[in-house]
Amino acid sequence: MTITARENWSRRRKFYAWGAEDEGATDEEARAIERVWGEALGADGFEVTPPPTLDEINLKPSRVDRVPTSLQPICHTDTYQRALHTYGKTFMECARCFARDFADAPDAVVYPRDEAEVAAVLDWCGGAELAAIPFGGGSSAVYGVNPVVGERFKGVVTIDMSHMNRVLETDITSRAARVQAGVFGPDLDAQLKPHGLSLRFFMQAYPYSSLGGWIATRAAGHYAMGTTHIDDFVESVHMVTPKGGWRSRRLPASGAGPSPDRFAIGSEGAMGIITEAWLRLPSRPAHRRGATFAFAAFDDGIEALREVAQAGLNPANCRLIDPREAGLTGSYDGTKAILVLGFESAHHPVDAWIDIAMQACRDHGGEAVEETLAASGDTSATAAARWRQAFLREPFYREVKTARGIGRDTCETAIPWSGFRDLHEAVKTRTSRAIREVTGRDGTVTCRITHVYPDGPAPYFTFHFLCDKTRMVEQATAIKTAAYDAMTETGGTITHHHAVGRLHMPWYLKQRPPLFGEVLRAAKETLDPRGMMNPGVIVES
Amino acid sequence: MTITARENWSRRRKFYAWGAEDEGATDEEARAIERVWGEALGADGFEVTPPPTLDEINLKPSRVDRVPTSLQPICHTDTYQRALHTYGKTFMECARCFARDFADAPDAVVYPRDEAEVAAVLDWCGGAELAAIPFGGGSSAVYGVNPVVGERFKGVVTIDMSHMNRVLETDITSRAARVQAGVFGPDLDAQLKPHGLSLRFFMQAYPYSSLGGWIATRAAGHYAMGTTHIDDFVESVHMVTPKGGWRSRRLPASGAGPSPDRFAIGSEGAMGIITEAWLRLPSRPAHRRGATFAFAAFDDGIEALREVAQAGLNPANCRLIDPREAGLTGSYDGTKAILVLGFESAHHPVDAWIDIAMQACRDHGGEAVEETLAASGDTSATAAARWRQAFLREPFYREVKTARGIGRDTCETAIPWSGFRDLHEAVKTRTSRAIREVTGRDGTVTCRITHVYPDGPAPYFTFHFLCDKTRMVEQATAIKTAAYDAMTETGGTITHHHAVGRLHMPWYLKQRPPLFGEVLRAAKETLDPRGMMNPGVIVES
Repeated sequence: MTITARENWSRRRKFYAWGAEDEGATDEEARAIERVWGEALGADGFEVTPPPTLDEINLKPSRVDRVPTSLQPICHTDTYQRALHTYGKTFMECARCFARDFADAPDAVVYPRDEAEVAAVLDWCGGAELAAIPFGGGSSAVYGVNPVVGERFKGVVTIDMSHMNRVLETDITSRAARVQAGVFGPDLDAQLKPHGLSLRFFMQAYPYSSLGGWIATRAAGHYAMGTTHIDDFVESVHMVTPKGGWRSRRLPASGAGPSPDRFAIGSEGAMGIITEAWLRLPSRPAHRRGATFAFAAFDDGIEALREVAQAGLNPANCRLIDPREAGLTGSYDGTKAILVLGFESAHHPVDAWIDIAMQACRDHGGEAVEETLAASGDTSATAAARWRQAFLREPFYREVKTARGIGRDTCETAIPWSGFRDLHEAVKTRTSRAIREVTGRDGTVTCRITHVYPDGPAPYFTFHFLCDKTRMVEQATAIKTAAYDAMTETGGTITHHHAVGRLHMPWYLKQRPPLFGEVLRAAKETLDPRGMMNPGVIVES
Repeated sequence: MTITARENWSRRRKFYAWGAEDEGATDEEARAIERVWGEALGADGFEVTPPPTLDEINLKPSRVDRVPTSLQPICHTDTYQRALHTYGKTFMECARCFARDFADAPDAVVYPRDEAEVAAVLDWCGGAELAAIPFGGGSSAVYGVNPVVGERFKGVVTIDMSHMNRVLETDITSRAARVQAGVFGPDLDAQLKPHGLSLRFFMQAYPYSSLGGWIATRAAGHYAMGTTHIDDFVESVHMVTPKGGWRSRRLPASGAGPSPDRFAIGSEGAMGIITEAWLRLPSRPAHRRGATFAFAAFDDGIEALREVAQAGLNPANCRLIDPREAGLTGSYDGTKAILVLGFESAHHPVDAWIDIAMQACRDHGGEAVEETLAASGDTSATAAARWRQAFLREPFYREVKTARGIGRDTCETAIPWSGFRDLHEAVKTRTSRAIREVTGRDGTVTCRITHVYPDGPAPYFTFHFLCDKTRMVEQATAIKTAAYDAMTETGGTITHHHAVGRLHMPWYLKQRPPLFGEVLRAAKETLDPRGMMNPGVIVES
């Protein structure tokens, strides 16, 4: 069975790692990774495990046999499709790919082309006692798309939404568009560009993640303040549930009862599949300015962030990267934290805005190291540009690191300003200790602030550690558990924008009001009485 | 039985109209109302019905007899308390007060002093088969607090939260405070002021509405853009439901599943009683500037608003008032629309912001009529100040108008910019026609824009009409129905910030996704299995 060419996204993806088959880290990048992480983790050279090939993968036979005739043209059971949809993109999953472990592969993958086909797939799954796993770009960092559903189903069908990828309608006056949920970031932007619009919603997973995935997981994007989450861009949601369609009215705002959209947003495929949304779209920026400041003390950088966040300036970019992370990513010299500021507007010059924010940085001891995003001139050599480049390339480095037993994982949260210092200290200390205990040697634990709010920051921690290649999943899980415990026990959320999935469920269950958990269960019983939608996510199965 | 003095709000309120017994419209204001509305509605003088007095009110005997001993000190069954809690503050309800009709009075009113007492009251209501009506300030515009619950209960208890009125905790670093839900606007502000904080959440009902009421009804406040609704200020919510307490974690942001807060916000007392919230608090503004523009064409003013809304400037104030409304409120000459702009910041001068917004107004044909809110100087004679004064006094005029048979009602909505013109035309035309058909003569239907979003405005319509005093409720209901039909059939929400209550239920049921209605019903059965919480609101009873 061959793969249906996607109309707007025809490159064949790697089934075991980030990106298309014809892209990845260069040899030069791989050598740099060995050099940087060999030094940071104290390793003398690396043995390189080759990536898996399709003929090495032994899948259990598909349990799906009687596919309804009308769905046969969009249903795939070949090894490539099943392997491609076995995992999201955590380190632990990449490690399992390198271990040639695809035991959890779905039994079939369907690519619906419209809402009617989504409904037909759910009808089929319901009747045949199959679990249904919605799949956008597969970039989940939380086991959100894994077909691990327990024993009570007769099989698992993954529903890949990437063929529903069109901008269906625009409303230029209102700066809005109706978009199918399966569209990936670059494709969405390309379709909006002729209308002068853009979602301006960039994140690391942008090239290989979908609008529906962003909405289902409450993803966060480009903007460091204000409209940080996709929640704020959604004007209305269409969802197909096992009990039928859910369409909210398209409104700029409403006070009519609890928001139906805010209930669908973040439901992670456990209530239904998001098929379309009307989006509020910023105009493409015509004016930009940026600047980077270095801070000798991370805490001073935090105070500068807090002032900017509480001043109501709404920077597009306002990120603080700790000295070690700035050093390890090649952004700065490793001795100072850097704070990257960016302002943008489609309407007017942003000098007044950035001048005030820059003064706040200076007032807290920041030293201006450069201005970036200037109207003209080559800015690719700036610290901000180097950081951005490292950030965008990192997903491609996953397979390079995994092949070498270099563990890399992250956790991210949000916390009131008053609680930040304790949380930061706890995560760094306890994760570092866990790395030592688990791997027998020191790793790195670094922090950046990705988003800021008047009442608190969203810190993002990255940890690297040298693994025993035969125990990578177990080691990474133990380290991650220490980080999650530290983060949530000091008041943080289990996730600011990576969602809950299966990975975060134990902490999510402690965090949410228990009665809200009962409401979610009742909602799921209403919308998905067979419990077949992404089982184990959001609601305990 | 005497009234327990409220610790921070001890003035005795009128049981039939807005405000305390020792405040109200002056004789001069009453004469101005007769002059303006006599002329506008073509009336030759008015017969004045005197306001009701307590000894004219005949209530049905209270059905509540066995109040638990522990609750007796906070439970009231006297005529004043029962009458005070019979109605919200619509024209129809004021008309019923003037008709001495208090047939729907609750059987008892309790004033819990802490969360334990709220829980005890709900236990009592559950055991005794009583309906429970949460009550904040009683300013509902949508029959949200009316003890009209059908026949399946043995009585109705109104739970007045106004004794839970304290700021319990502040977090200055994070600009946040934990506040009891019963506090009224001015009292909250007075308690926050020593900390340099303010909620900056002003609306017409501000003096006589509560934090818990704002949260339960998704009220909108001071800010014309950005943080328009209370939703945006809530960091976490405490709610007491018949099944126990609901407390969300205090977070600046989270991506962990559908937001529990966004489910509690807007639940209108149908799921439980909001008892506390952590609030994000702006600092008190130190810099302000304002300006007013006149537009010969209302549509040009709309285009100016749209440009400002889409430019990302976030004005605190950005309101457009149509020529007739500006004239009738004495704000301007009646021939032009006025657009009132205001910017404020605790952090920095706002000149750059307002200069850009003012240019947008000029570019769309606006004529600057004055600058207001200047750093110094008497600005009380400006159009903006006159409009503000008329706006703040209007609730006190309700009883003056009702006593004279001058009907005044409103509806408010939000709509994408592309749909505004049709909605505006439909509401004006169909409401005007309904006024003629129902009253036999012309009334007035005016419009202002209260809040703006990048993708659409929130229009607010006010209508005046001359009633037959024996049929005021019936006439107003018919007129209002025409307005609601027009507003929702052209794509608007039934409410941008007045909530659903019992009045808006028929339109709300048509607007929301039917499956979300089923989710709400399942949630209510989970949290309130007896269906006793504010029955008939949000969920059909």
